[in-house]
Amino acid sequence: MPENPLHLLMNPKSIAVVGASNNPMKMGTMQALSIIKDGYRGKFYPVHLTEKMVLGHKAYARVEDLPETPDLAILIVPTKAVIELLDRFGKIGTKKAIIITAGFKETGTTGRNMEYDLVAVAEKYGIRFVGPNCVGIINSQIHLNVTVAGMPDEPGMLGLASQSGTYITQTLAYLRERGIRFSKAISLGNEANINIVDALEFLGEDKHTKAIILYIEGLRDGRRFIEVARKITPHKPVLAQYVGGTAAGARAGLSHTGAMAGPDFLYNGIFRQAGIIRVESIEDLYAHGWALATKPPLRGNRVGVMTNSGGPATAMSYVCDLGGMEVPRFSEKLQKEIRQHIQAQAAGANPVDMTFDLDMRKLALTIPELIMKSGEVDALLLHGTMGTGFMREVYHHAADLFGNIPFAEFMKLFNPIDAEALKLPHKYKIPLLISTFFDIDDSYATAYKNSGIPVFNSPEKTARALLSMYRYKQIKERQRCKVSTLPQKNPAAAGFIRDALKNKQKALDEHTAKILLSAYGVPVTKEILAKTEKEAIAAAKKIGYPIALKACSWEIMHKSGKGLIALNVEDEIKLKIKFQNIQKAAGRKVPVLVQEMLSGNREFLAGMTRFAGFGPCVVFGLGGVFTEIYNDTTIRLAPITKCDTEEMFADIHARKLLGDFRGLPPVKKDQLAKTLRALGNIALLHPEITEIDLNPIIISGAKPIVADALIVLADKPKD
Amino acid sequence: MPENPLHLLMNPKSIAVVGASNNPMKMGTMQALSIIKDGYRGKFYPVHLTEKMVLGHKAYARVEDLPETPDLAILIVPTKAVIELLDRFGKIGTKKAIIITAGFKETGTTGRNMEYDLVAVAEKYGIRFVGPNCVGIINSQIHLNVTVAGMPDEPGMLGLASQSGTYITQTLAYLRERGIRFSKAISLGNEANINIVDALEFLGEDKHTKAIILYIEGLRDGRRFIEVARKITPHKPVLAQYVGGTAAGARAGLSHTGAMAGPDFLYNGIFRQAGIIRVESIEDLYAHGWALATKPPLRGNRVGVMTNSGGPATAMSYVCDLGGMEVPRFSEKLQKEIRQHIQAQAAGANPVDMTFDLDMRKLALTIPELIMKSGEVDALLLHGTMGTGFMREVYHHAADLFGNIPFAEFMKLFNPIDAEALKLPHKYKIPLLISTFFDIDDSYATAYKNSGIPVFNSPEKTARALLSMYRYKQIKERQRCKVSTLPQKNPAAAGFIRDALKNKQKALDEHTAKILLSAYGVPVTKEILAKTEKEAIAAAKKIGYPIALKACSWEIMHKSGKGLIALNVEDEIKLKIKFQNIQKAAGRKVPVLVQEMLSGNREFLAGMTRFAGFGPCVVFGLGGVFTEIYNDTTIRLAPITKCDTEEMFADIHARKLLGDFRGLPPVKKDQLAKTLRALGNIALLHPEITEIDLNPIIISGAKPIVADALIVLADKPKD
Repeated sequence: MPENPLHLLMNPKSIAVVGASNNPMKMGTMQALSIIKDGYRGKFYPVHLTEKMVLGHKAYARVEDLPETPDLAILIVPTKAVIELLDRFGKIGTKKAIIITAGFKETGTTGRNMEYDLVAVAEKYGIRFVGPNCVGIINSQIHLNVTVAGMPDEPGMLGLASQSGTYITQTLAYLRERGIRFSKAISLGNEANINIVDALEFLGEDKHTKAIILYIEGLRDGRRFIEVARKITPHKPVLAQYVGGTAAGARAGLSHTGAMAGPDFLYNGIFRQAGIIRVESIEDLYAHGWALATKPPLRGNRVGVMTNSGGPATAMSYVCDLGGMEVPRFSEKLQKEIRQHIQAQAAGANPVDMTFDLDMRKLALTIPELIMKSGEVDALLLHGTMGTGFMREVYHHAADLFGNIPFAEFMKLFNPIDAEALKLPHKYKIPLLISTFFDIDDSYATAYKNSGIPVFNSPEKTARALLSMYRYKQIKERQRCKVSTLPQKNPAAAGFIRDALKNKQKALDEHTAKILLSAYGVPVTKEILAKTEKEAIAAAKKIGYPIALKACSWEIMHKSGKGLIALNVEDEIKLKIKFQNIQKAAGRKVPVLVQEMLSGNREFLAGMTRFAGFGPCVVFGLGGVFTEIYNDTTIRLAPITKCDTEEMFADIHARKLLGDFRGLPPVKKDQLAKTLRALGNIALLHPEITEIDLNPIIISGAKPIVADALIVLADKPKD
Repeated sequence: MPENPLHLLMNPKSIAVVGASNNPMKMGTMQALSIIKDGYRGKFYPVHLTEKMVLGHKAYARVEDLPETPDLAILIVPTKAVIELLDRFGKIGTKKAIIITAGFKETGTTGRNMEYDLVAVAEKYGIRFVGPNCVGIINSQIHLNVTVAGMPDEPGMLGLASQSGTYITQTLAYLRERGIRFSKAISLGNEANINIVDALEFLGEDKHTKAIILYIEGLRDGRRFIEVARKITPHKPVLAQYVGGTAAGARAGLSHTGAMAGPDFLYNGIFRQAGIIRVESIEDLYAHGWALATKPPLRGNRVGVMTNSGGPATAMSYVCDLGGMEVPRFSEKLQKEIRQHIQAQAAGANPVDMTFDLDMRKLALTIPELIMKSGEVDALLLHGTMGTGFMREVYHHAADLFGNIPFAEFMKLFNPIDAEALKLPHKYKIPLLISTFFDIDDSYATAYKNSGIPVFNSPEKTARALLSMYRYKQIKERQRCKVSTLPQKNPAAAGFIRDALKNKQKALDEHTAKILLSAYGVPVTKEILAKTEKEAIAAAKKIGYPIALKACSWEIMHKSGKGLIALNVEDEIKLKIKFQNIQKAAGRKVPVLVQEMLSGNREFLAGMTRFAGFGPCVVFGLGGVFTEIYNDTTIRLAPITKCDTEEMFADIHARKLLGDFRGLPPVKKDQLAKTLRALGNIALLHPEITEIDLNPIIISGAKPIVADALIVLADKPKD
């Protein structure tokens, strides 16, 4: 495996910047200032045609004048100057670049062509670059900040790869206030060279990054994304926000960084497959990511809720409950211990609600320690009155009662947070999450933040962050299966496809499709193709009444509602009538498939479809008439493993139907799983197949049998 | 209608407080300080046994010593002192009280009994009170603040009724920072006397309250709640958070204010029926409530998105799209106008993404005005660089380039927000919502907040608030139907019930249930009760084969899977066998219902159930085997109107099944609606019926026919 290009790009010993000047209101200058002022200790070389000094550093008129070959070149110049500049850096041997400049692919054809040229220049010199149309990177370990905003001194633990630059610049002040700090952050821009998968891989390898968050508007290499993510998620949490799945979302994204959006359900499926936690807002991405970046990890599902106000306790319990975590009633022993510290009317059973009580030591240390020590919880959520934030409210009204001493003096009357309270999560190896409405400007909140204990400003947000921790626990513990080796390509199957394509068919007929499926072990209905009524009668005799009759021709891809199907045909007389009816409905002589009539109350569907950049994907879900009603399906990239199929079975809402349902026997899941895996393999072996649709798969007794099948073909094989 | 007790309680000319002292760290003192310091201009009388002066006001040793009868008494005293004190206030003629003191119902039996006594004392004197176990009230119009935290000077527009006191105290600083201000706020506590419905009614009548938000842990008078809410929501938005619907949520709530929780789906149903918008967090409750309290109201579903950074634009568009709003592509004309103000690589089609550009006038005024003026949008979302918030980031790095002038001087180099930008929403009658990560400390954000333009710190939160505005637009526009007068009680039906109860039955048998339903116009299967095989044969002949056979006895409430049903019985021979089988399965001689065999692919369910405090509710949803799989149901309180039934049809996910589905005719919705209304009426006319379960209702052709029915009875009539 070649080394990830971001290792050097994010850790340059020297940086040349083109586009910085002494005008502080220019983006290039702001970015140069961030490099100079935030503590980066490498060499800094401004390139400027006219200025002798830029921001106190000697400036060089041309790239060729630089005193050494810089590890990294940063370009913040007019679009038309980018390509020549990169060429010059290539000539002097620079191997890494960040191209901030916009005006490429995202603007249309001309820009797209310029981007191709840019990529060609980079390839010529073996340059790897981030951008164009990005805001740069942050590496807090070496205090390197290329963005226009300021970065905290202390390195963080959260790694971000973002398809929007805003989320590593405009949000820096927001994050600073919340105590959330990046280890590394990468604004990817148009991803002309280095893309989000490279960034994900890099963050996965980075030992300072304890959790990874991804802002995604579209993936162009979905297949590699999953491969890389799958390797990371067992040992490092990855969270993602995806916003490309609607028309407006996609359009906004397109004009933004030219990302390629795909449907929401596809992203849901691949995130699940890769073990990535999906969140629904940038706030949650940061908040949940930060909770997961902090230590210790969550070990179980039992939540303690500690508070001095009932509303937040109720809301947090409610969110935990809905998310599958438990807020267990404490043992009598523990309740008794807690009751010694709370008022008579207060609640001690979990949630613990002290009610109005200004003794912060009890709220932050004494009772939390009792709860953690008890072994009765795996996590503790704490909400309540804090330090300066609350006291400022009191002071506002009561200053004169305290002789109008300044607020700082007033605060000296109260004990600051006990250092022991900050050690609790590590002492007991139990995560502690703080919820307080005084998050921004509070001595307790600040102390918690500085100790790496997550602080959020709403009870629900805090509880939801815990749910993401719980989700990650499940991801870490989930079974992992090896991908089986791909079976041999079936020669008969290949023959069917070849013949059909030669014949200019756009699909296989149902019967041929089923023979092909059978060849790969998929159980299908017993059936015989009959060209004449006589053949049909003989076939029906062989299969046994009642039977189903279906017009069978590749041109008839969707048969229902057109008089081309007769179900429950009970005897020869009816068969003759129905056979003729089908011929009439078809408007021509059409072969008829004589099929065993399956009975079963449970119908599923399976299918295969290809998405650009993702390749073949396998779908599973509820079939039959309810298919369109509930859209109850799930999707995975092929090839799929046994573990994938088990997770797919658990994904759908109708999962109960797979079990012992209303007296019906549990579905033979291994057989269903085999069908799903076969679909993936067929797609990988036969790139000419663009789509497979098996609906319904009827559960006959306990056995899943494919009752209808469509295999769509294309001349141009897809990947 | 008697005047709402909160009118006087919230507008007292004089207040007596018992429990305030000169110790500023006591809750009572803090509350008294809020009254004194926040601008209340009425009389303030502290009652204190020993102090002569309390907080600079003459104190009175006993209630009887007060110089006048105070309009309002506030008690923050030990629990055991409350009842006697209220009695004393009653004696001097005070009619309104706020009882802050806790230790009543929420603590168990003793407390509950004390609360009964407290209520009795109040009733004796005609006193109406809020509490106990609350934090008090805020009336910003008269600058009256009874809570322990500080309140902004300027009155607000948002009315809150909360079953948690935290949300009108601990959050005051949080709200102040976000520019969200209460008109009135009421902490309800245990609701021993004045309850959340009274508060809702009061806020509905209050002309300063432009939107109402409710924090609910449980309703005890659900029926009146709906009645009151229904009257308010057509002209004033009401939003609610409900957190009692899970085990832990309910337990937390119970120990909190002794509220009564009910299942989530019940609250979903009644909120829909009442036109209340449900939100999922306290953050959203405040934020969406505030957006709805500001003006102008939303008139359509077209959203303009204006920004200088792509990520937030994409995220906001995505949320709008998912929520059913449209982010339309602008006309060529408008795009051309916009393009004159943005860089070549920027996007102007909507979202408008200026990309990096420090010209705030363009972002906040020029382009927004072009968009609003065009008539192409109904709302504008704006996200981007703001004033001091962003400039502080620049200053942090560039101060020395500006000769280290102080930040305030530095800011003078830039234009403050143009006053015209703040007038846009009113000028064009188009709501403007601001998203900025610099919400807390930014000159633009502050100016927007002060102008009553909502500002939020995440793009998704901003877009979600707009969705609540859109939801309210739909609520305002929805059709409203009058409740039909209750039909006459059917004497035969009453007779069945009387006889059954006399016979100690817990339910009606299926056949009797269906006769009863028929009497109220509900279409049921053709069926004849047969006691003997002979009778069954005759009945089948009359109905016509195939028929269904079912054991019919009130004791057999759930028949399926027990051999007590035979479907599709085709002829007399089979009938005889099945008849005997049923007798065997029953283990005794049992009458058999001979029923027409309905065929239909679509099955629904309807039912009636009673919840304490809510009375009879009508359920509608998907029936048949999928009932338990998808739980796709909706609920309304009886009596239900035609409008209710139409909304119920739209509520369920399977709504497509009601239409022209896969070649089947659209369901006769009017007949289905009639059945739902009948269920409500039956429940209201016959309180002895505790539950009705109609499942399946088979759609035969287009006609809904009840194929199975269960009517459960109780000796003790329910309301």
